[in-house]
Parts: sequence; C-alpha cells; structure tokens
Amino acid sequence: MDLHLSIGAREGSLRGRLENELREAIRAGRLTPGDGLPSSRALAVDLGISRGVVVEAYEQLTAEGYLVAVVGSGTRVAADAGRGGDEGSGLEGQARDELPSVAEPRARHHLRPGLPDLASFPRRRWAAALTDTLRELPDERLSYGDARGAVELREALAGYLGRARGVSSSADRIVLTGGLRTGLSLLWGALAARGLRRVGIEQPGWPGQGATVVAAGLDAVPVAVDGDGLVVEELERSGVDAVVVTPANQFPTGAVLAPERRAALVAWARREGAQIVEDDYDAQYRYDRDPVGSLQGLAPDRTVHGGSVSKLLAPGLAIGWLVLPERLAGPVAEHKRSSQGAGSVIEQVALARLIDSGELDRHLRRSRRLYRGRREAVLAALARELPEARVSGAAAGLHVVVLLPSGCDEEAVVSEAARRSLALEAMRGREPAVLLGYGRLPEESVASVVRALAEAVRSARPGA
Amino acid sequence: MDLHLSIGAREGSLRGRLENELREAIRAGRLTPGDGLPSSRALAVDLGISRGVVVEAYEQLTAEGYLVAVVGSGTRVAADAGRGGDEGSGLEGQARDELPSVAEPRARHHLRPGLPDLASFPRRRWAAALTDTLRELPDERLSYGDARGAVELREALAGYLGRARGVSSSADRIVLTGGLRTGLSLLWGALAARGLRRVGIEQPGWPGQGATVVAAGLDAVPVAVDGDGLVVEELERSGVDAVVVTPANQFPTGAVLAPERRAALVAWARREGAQIVEDDYDAQYRYDRDPVGSLQGLAPDRTVHGGSVSKLLAPGLAIGWLVLPERLAGPVAEHKRSSQGAGSVIEQVALARLIDSGELDRHLRRSRRLYRGRREAVLAALARELPEARVSGAAAGLHVVVLLPSGCDEEAVVSEAARRSLALEAMRGREPAVLLGYGRLPEESVASVVRALAEAVRSARPGA
Repeated sequence: MDLHLSIGAREGSLRGRLENELREAIRAGRLTPGDGLPSSRALAVDLGISRGVVVEAYEQLTAEGYLVAVVGSGTRVAADAGRGGDEGSGLEGQARDELPSVAEPRARHHLRPGLPDLASFPRRRWAAALTDTLRELPDERLSYGDARGAVELREALAGYLGRARGVSSSADRIVLTGGLRTGLSLLWGALAARGLRRVGIEQPGWPGQGATVVAAGLDAVPVAVDGDGLVVEELERSGVDAVVVTPANQFPTGAVLAPERRAALVAWARREGAQIVEDDYDAQYRYDRDPVGSLQGLAPDRTVHGGSVSKLLAPGLAIGWLVLPERLAGPVAEHKRSSQGAGSVIEQVALARLIDSGELDRHLRRSRRLYRGRREAVLAALARELPEARVSGAAAGLHVVVLLPSGCDEEAVVSEAARRSLALEAMRGREPAVLLGYGRLPEESVASVVRALAEAVRSARPGA
Repeated sequence: MDLHLSIGAREGSLRGRLENELREAIRAGRLTPGDGLPSSRALAVDLGISRGVVVEAYEQLTAEGYLVAVVGSGTRVAADAGRGGDEGSGLEGQARDELPSVAEPRARHHLRPGLPDLASFPRRRWAAALTDTLRELPDERLSYGDARGAVELREALAGYLGRARGVSSSADRIVLTGGLRTGLSLLWGALAARGLRRVGIEQPGWPGQGATVVAAGLDAVPVAVDGDGLVVEELERSGVDAVVVTPANQFPTGAVLAPERRAALVAWARREGAQIVEDDYDAQYRYDRDPVGSLQGLAPDRTVHGGSVSKLLAPGLAIGWLVLPERLAGPVAEHKRSSQGAGSVIEQVALARLIDSGELDRHLRRSRRLYRGRREAVLAALARELPEARVSGAAAGLHVVVLLPSGCDEEAVVSEAARRSLALEAMRGREPAVLLGYGRLPEESVASVVRALAEAVRSARPGA
C-alpha cells in the first residue's frame, strides 16, 4: 500500500507532520474506514524515520478518534473517521469563570479555574498591532462590515485552527463572535429558527453553557460525564437535538473523550441528524503530549467548533469564533446579520496580524512553559502537603481537580479556603472535590497556597 | 503589467499563496476594479508555476467576488473588489446602511444614508486612547468583566448623554452593547422572557429594527409615520407590547416627533404598561437649532434609550448602549450575563477616555461643521439642478429626502443613478422619493453628483 505520505520539507515536528499527513489521507478518502495501516515498524522503514515517531503518531490519532487499535490485527482507520471531509465546524470555549455576582472577601489568590495569566498578556505587542491596523486599514473598512467579521481574521483563523487543532475550515465557514458565550447564543438563535429545542450539556460542566441554552428559551438537558468524558449511551437516550461537549479536556473533570466515545458520538449525530458543538476552551494547554486534536476534524459535517482568545490571550479582548458545517454557515451568518453587528474591525484585524506574524504562537510557547512550571509545582506541593487527596485532570488545561478524602464537604472547604484568602471553586460532581486553578498563581506562591489549602481541608473535615 | 506578486518563501500551498498575493494587490489598490488580469497561461509562465494553479486561484477569487470572468475578455478585477472585500458579500452589518445583497456596478459616490465621513475618523487619537488604556489598565481588568461593560464607559456615557441628549441615567442603568442592532436583540431577548410578543416598528423605517424583532422570534407590527412622526393613534389600535421610534429625526423621513405625539406616546405606554424604545441614531446632527432632546428624558420610566458610536465616530468600532428604566436594568444585565460577554474592555475604556478628555466633543464640533457645509451645498445644487423635486428631512441627520415629481418611479431613479456611479437608496414610503446621504460626499463633488442625479431622474421619467 502506498499512502502517498509526504513529510519532507514542511514545518513542524516529524511526528506532527506525519499526523497531519495521515489525517489528510483519511479526510481525502485515500484511507477509508476499516483500512489497515502498516505496522509502525514497516512505516518507519518506508519513511526513513524512527519507529517511536510512528508509534506516537498512531497513538495520537487513536486518541483523536481517527484510528482504532484492534487487538491482534494492528491499527485501522476508525469507522466514522473523516466523513464529510470538506464540511467543517467548531465551537470552543470561553468563560469557565463564573465570577460570583455577590461580593466576597477579597482573595489574595485567585484559584478559580478558567483564567490565563493576565500579567503575561502581551500588552505592548497588542498596542502595536492595534496602532498598525489603525494606520493601514482603508477608510471603507471603518463602515459596517461583513456580519461574519473581518475577512483577515477569518482567513488567519482557518489556517491557525487547522495547524494547531486539526480543524477543517475555511474563512467562509467561520463567524466571529464576542467570545464563546456570545457564539453559543448566536448558534442557538439560528438553530431555534430551524426547530432546535433541546440541548444536551455535560454534567458536571461549565454552567455558562447551560445558561446560554436557557437564555435562548431552549431546554438544557444534563448528560453525565465519567472518566472517559461524555457518557454517549446516556446521550442516546436523552432525545436532544444537539449537545455541547469539551472533548479535548472536559471541564471540570479533565477527562479526554475516549476514542470509542468519539466514534459513538459522531455516529449518534449522523443517525439522529443532531448537532455536536465542540467547546475547545483550553485544548492548547496539554503537558504530557501534544494536544488532542479537535473532534471537529473527525466529523466536520456534524460538528460546530467554538473557541475564543479568552485562554490564549485574555478574556477582555472578547473575540471568539464558530467554525460551522457548510450547511449551517449561511443560516448562522444570516442570523448574525439580522441580530448583531460585525464586532470591532480594528481588534479583529489586529488579532489577524498577531496570528499571521507568528506572535500568537510565540506567546503560546511562552505561556505553556509558564503553566507547565506552575502545574509541576502544584502537583509536588499537593503530594507533600495534602497526601490524603487524590489529583486528577492534571494532564491539560489550567487547573487540577483535587479529590477530597471521602466524607469531606467540598463547600465547607471552599469556605475555609476563603477565610484563608483563597478563592476556589467546588467541583459539584459525584465525589467531593475542589478545582485548583493555577493560571494566575505565580510559581513562588504555590507552596504557601497549597499549605493553606491543606489547612482548609483539615478544618473542614467532619469532627475537625 | 507587473503585479509584484511574490509567492516564494511563505507558508501554505502555492495556490493559497497566489490567492493571498492577488487579494492583497486588490486591497492595496495595486489592482483596481476593471483591471484585466494576465491570462492564466501567461501568469503561470511568469511565475514558473503550473497553469492549473493559476486557474484554480482565479476561480477561487471569482467565487469570493474579487474577480469576474468576462466572456471574450478574460478575467478582471470585480467592480466592488477591494472596498474592504467585505461589502459585496451581502452580509454586511448594521444600521442605516443596508447595502444591497446583489453586486452592483462600482459606485464612485456613496450616497446611501446612515454613514458618517469615515475619512475624518480620528485615527491617531483613537490609537493613542487605546495605547494609553493598555498601558494603564490593571491586569485584573483583562479578565471577564461586568457583563454590562466597563464601568468607566458607563459612567462617562451617563454624563455625556445627560449633557448632550437630555438623557436621565446612571452607570448602573446602562448596558454596553456591540451597536444598536446588538442592543435591540439583547433587549428583545430579555423582554421575551417577560412576555413580550409584538413590537411596533415605524413604517417607513430602518429595516434593521424589524430584522432584530423577527430574529428574536417576535412579531414586527408596522405603524405608520407622517410629517409629525409616528402616528400614535394607529399605535393605540395595534395592540403591541413595545414600539421602536426615532423621535429626534425619523428614519428615513426626517420628521421630528411632534410634541403632542410625544405626550400621547408616553400616555399610551403608561396606560398599557408598554415599552418605548428610542433609537437615537443620529440625533446629534441638527443644523437649524439645537438637537431635539431625547424622548427618554421625558419618560425615563417607560423608555429604553439606545444609541451607538456608529454615526458619532464610525460603525467599525462596534460600541453601543442601552439606557434602561430602573425596573429593566437588572433583567437586561442578567440576560446579557447569561447570553453574551462583556465586550472589549480595552475599546470601552478607550472610548471613556475620549469622552472624558473632551475629544469626542471636539470631534463632533468639527463633524457638524463639515456636514453643515455639505448639506448647504446639496440643498443649493438640488434647487439649481432639480427644481422639480421637493426636499424634506433636511434639518438634521446625514441625508435629505428628495421627493420626486409625481409619476416618477423611485426604483428606476436608483437604477439610473447606479448607471452614473451613484449608490442611492429609495425611500419606499407613500410618495416616490430617494434618500441622498451626504455623510461621505466631499463638498467639492456635490455639484457634479447632484447634476448626475438630476439626469438620472429625467432618464427615469415616464416617456423619457
């Protein structure tokens, strides 16, 4: 079998290029569902690369749902992979940052999940991008623009999301929004006019998702999450018309949607004519391996991919996007045209500059280093100070889940932590747990913060 | 012809790079509408690439509207290309600027109502305000903010709208939005949850108002307008729950809502528990006396006052506001919190700086002088060149209504004007009339433009 893989002269790691080539081969139909892949040894020899690279690439694509490992018969293309290859879509994430509406004692340390390090926002570069944009943008562009948002940014995002997240898209299937929440509301408005009534949301999950569903006058139907992500069997019984998922890094559990769940989810959507909405809120922060590629890449015809700069840069920029399947691109654009403006053209074009110049990539490389250091310090301190807790969801994102000793009241821990100037959030899942966000926690504060958290846990214990 | 295309060392496919280079050449004006492109064969030879790549790139750019294939004469730059690339798509945004969704011959003069002079947007001052904001804003403010928007701008607007428009408000009754259209949609969403079903809209009026009502799943009920503005007697018979009005300068007629109508409108709203929504879109431009004060000042308990910077600065900033009655401030803020983000904190705080420093007032003084000169030139030229037409709605705003001789077909005049490179809009009211917007019409062009309009009117006449 000749796969026509060409991993020669391009950019990126060898492994990344091999993954891209394989994804492309599946999407383009050169590899079809059920096809067996060469053994890692054979392919490595063929390509003149090390076998480890091939093994890792196969593993990555298995995690993303493109491939399946079949015991006794090697690696095959997954049943539903890549169908509808030209149609893309996607919805990522924003505000996992439900700040309380009531005042709380001023916290010295913000440990809520869902915020990046605001101190490292590249202010000077952003100011320069804005100023350059204002110097060069033709007058005409200061008018009412395309309701979908500035074409420069839609083009830049199509390239960027393809490269960084394996999203299959093009500028005319992207609609810019004021962030993920605004994007979800826009989507519900457009889909409600086409009969959408019930939307599944992950439980536990980000309350903002359900809030947008309810605000749109629709029904939000909770669907359980376990260690493999959304429980698709429960989804199948729910009778919903759409579901919002966080496949790369479930919020708040940190579960990665398992390959067989990915396949089952896509099969469900195709069978029912239902819509998957992928909230890709912080998928770019992964510490043990490359980020898990987007679900949208696997089923661009059935997935809306949503994202924003809230975790990549800062929420205050208020820029997000929806990548839509072909059949929804027109209706969603039209709904936006009727109900909203285009958004700030100056900020949109400035962001396109940041992406095109490679500044965003450089910023993310710096950020990943920063968060990796904080994460390691947090894990070490938790092991030292709070050995009775287990930690999960640490492989990716900007928070870890601290599973409390059984019998512990998570809300009491949150209160005790607040008394120690720590602003924390409870997980509200099946086991008592708190979420420890380290996006804004300087490495040098980790030890004292975790010590204070350990005290809070002990004070909150029954009989303490 | 040397196109200065450089598709050498960059990322992406050859075809993609060629497309980008061509788009750039059109946007930058190196290729202008009507310019012929080299044949695919010639360009392929020039660039040393395969002809198929050039053909595909031409096809793509034709689909995107940048190029047109003219039978017998090859490929040319499209009429509308490069005016930002966005405007030919039929998806453009907002306000009183409903560009047609079908392509039209490129207009040399944009005479549609509803746009300010984009060339006088204070770019340097805006860049300075953004840069200063980025230098001074605390990190914390780059987080998810108050869903109502930045408090600095809500405070600045409370002062400014009180001073300039007689609006009675305070920061906690203001919600910032992405423009008037976005604001109306937000309001309908919040009111729909409280039982709102039918919304009165002015007839004739700005189609964008009705579009927001329909997009929210509500009924838009037309209510007649005459020389004294909205016919309140008709409103009383309509059974609507709310009505959107343009009292200071009715769009498009230019009527000012008469004092007795104002009183009757407010009495109706109080009697019925109905909601008045004041669209104050260009009330600040009045030439014969001070602007007519806001209706909201008369009945702050029953009026939502909506506005934006679209006419004051430029639509591309995408900043607007709702000033809400006490009883609606909470529900609308809560609905925004559930369904949208806060908007760009950097641009909001920058606008607050522009207001607080007096820059916005200075800009408006300059703008009023500019528009007054254009308006006087337009009125003089119309009297000279088109004495058979009557003019109305000239006391305020950025357009005049040209009432055509009876029997004249307004759509035919619009077509004839388009053939003369004038982009005009028909009034679609009771009498044949066209709207002549002068916001973007330089004074030195007025004479020739009005002469061309007079020719268009005569050509469109029955028996002409």
